[in-house]
Amino acid sequence: MSEHLFLRACRRQPVERTPIWMMRQAGRYLPAYRAVRARASFLDLCRTPELACEVTLQPIDEFGFDAAILFSDILITLPAMGLDVAFPEAGPKIGTPIRTAAAIDALRVPDPDLELPSTLEAIRQIKRGLAGRVPLIGFAGAPLTMLTYAVEGGGSKDYPNTKKLLYGSPDQAHTLLDKLARTCAVFLEAQVRAGVECVQIFDSWGGIVSPGDFREYPLRYAKRVIEMLRESPTWQTSPVPIIYFVNGCAPYLDDYASSGADVLGVDWRVGIDHVRRRVGDGVALQGNLDPGALFASPAEIRTRVADILERAGQIGHIFNLGHGVLPETDPEHVRAMVTAVRELSART
Amino acid sequence: MSEHLFLRACRRQPVERTPIWMMRQAGRYLPAYRAVRARASFLDLCRTPELACEVTLQPIDEFGFDAAILFSDILITLPAMGLDVAFPEAGPKIGTPIRTAAAIDALRVPDPDLELPSTLEAIRQIKRGLAGRVPLIGFAGAPLTMLTYAVEGGGSKDYPNTKKLLYGSPDQAHTLLDKLARTCAVFLEAQVRAGVECVQIFDSWGGIVSPGDFREYPLRYAKRVIEMLRESPTWQTSPVPIIYFVNGCAPYLDDYASSGADVLGVDWRVGIDHVRRRVGDGVALQGNLDPGALFASPAEIRTRVADILERAGQIGHIFNLGHGVLPETDPEHVRAMVTAVRELSART
Repeated sequence: MSEHLFLRACRRQPVERTPIWMMRQAGRYLPAYRAVRARASFLDLCRTPELACEVTLQPIDEFGFDAAILFSDILITLPAMGLDVAFPEAGPKIGTPIRTAAAIDALRVPDPDLELPSTLEAIRQIKRGLAGRVPLIGFAGAPLTMLTYAVEGGGSKDYPNTKKLLYGSPDQAHTLLDKLARTCAVFLEAQVRAGVECVQIFDSWGGIVSPGDFREYPLRYAKRVIEMLRESPTWQTSPVPIIYFVNGCAPYLDDYASSGADVLGVDWRVGIDHVRRRVGDGVALQGNLDPGALFASPAEIRTRVADILERAGQIGHIFNLGHGVLPETDPEHVRAMVTAVRELSART
Repeated sequence: MSEHLFLRACRRQPVERTPIWMMRQAGRYLPAYRAVRARASFLDLCRTPELACEVTLQPIDEFGFDAAILFSDILITLPAMGLDVAFPEAGPKIGTPIRTAAAIDALRVPDPDLELPSTLEAIRQIKRGLAGRVPLIGFAGAPLTMLTYAVEGGGSKDYPNTKKLLYGSPDQAHTLLDKLARTCAVFLEAQVRAGVECVQIFDSWGGIVSPGDFREYPLRYAKRVIEMLRESPTWQTSPVPIIYFVNGCAPYLDDYASSGADVLGVDWRVGIDHVRRRVGDGVALQGNLDPGALFASPAEIRTRVADILERAGQIGHIFNLGHGVLPETDPEHVRAMVTAVRELSART
């Protein structure tokens, strides 16, 4: 399995063509997914291994992506830490957001084997379902991103509570980020033990701060997660590639490569060739088509795919969207993207 | 008036200290503003010259900012174009968002003198109220940003309708952007005739696209607005400085300076020294403290102000936040920022 196209690209080894997968590839844009969701809630899907397995495999069967990603949610660890989380259609909501030092102290670092067993069981079932066809990616939310949900109570436009905590009470912020980092690390380690062959750390909201604060908060704690992973006993036998994805990475390119990850995720707002020049050749890059570009015609999608392949080069590039696929996307346009990547990146 | 500190900084002329104003400085963080809002709706404030004048002057009297900015809203032109707009606390809502070519064709380019007279009258009253103390900045929403509101019907997280229009129906998108650009240009020209001494073009959501799409959509139409302004009869007698502000400008720095603006707004996510290196010395820069950094202690605010002043240099720098001040901000922390800028930037 270590020689699979996707894993070779993560390690910057030669590939016969550029591998492709898509963030949120198991999701609402897919009729087969919506059929499953019609009979089960989002949280049921996350917590029922058979259902998580079913929807994880759907896009592999449908489009032949080069990697599967565990169907789950970055917020899945929060209930195990002691927070109430609901997942209505409008977006996740935390019952009692973290606003005090006491609330931070009350949070626990969960033991994934005891408190997140359904996720680990889903991984084992998916692995059997995949039967070696493509590698399975596990994931978790990065500490700063998890902090934003925990303190805002959901999504946010301006992140006032996040910034009150980071800048008004930095000691409390560091205490919370430390707990979130340990939670992230033990959860990812458990996922690797359960069988995932790569992990992605999602810093979806790592891009809301100044470059100095990026070093002090999101990057510092993502680094800590990566260090804890690399120093864990599991890593001695299963040193899987680590992807670190910051949505809105353009302002931080001088520091991004110092995360210690094998692969850096690149959102669509920045040229991937520009990112390559700034981060150097020590890491692979993953990205970076605008999810909204899938609303374009198949011909235009192909043109945009060709442009990204040209900018990225073939070594150390995993094709992906720059963020999750939008629910309104036409699956046939996803197919046009996959076909274009396969055809245009193939070296004869 | 042309020799005021703020206007000299806009033109990269020598200054005795760095001027400062603050986006949304007339706003909810200020008790005096909330007192006015307790007796009038947001839209009433925008449309009643006496009230718009009153709240515009409040932060000048309170903190001694070096420029006043007209109290209004970027969406104020949409009703004059033919759209219904409401301003509830949760954010603006468009009654019937633009989703068809027919809806685009039905939009009108308004005559500001006939259809936005209260804004122009507010400018005349504010000018009398300021009595030459500081210059008055007028503003309008940039075409792409106005398009996002018109087609999404309000704020958005992923801008699916915007991207469907831009990438799925580019001809329609260009037709709409052309109307929005003409509306923006005639409105800004009318504001200059009414007396504003500077104009800012707000591309709050210009940062949601790839670098290639930035050139094709937000930048192209901001450029067109600026060209129309510079070619207008008004400009022969009143060539006021033009500020172009893209929230999330970091990915576009190779192209940003080509907008034709005198001043480029810089949001807080990127180092202002990095922006200066990339855009060259032909423009002034405005920014770029994180609005959330005002939650820090006054001592920490002073440290952050010093850092930005050091990175920006004194020539061609207007101190500002990187986006609008947050409503939860303590006015005394705003005062700490203003004091720090005045003291630390003064050259003896």
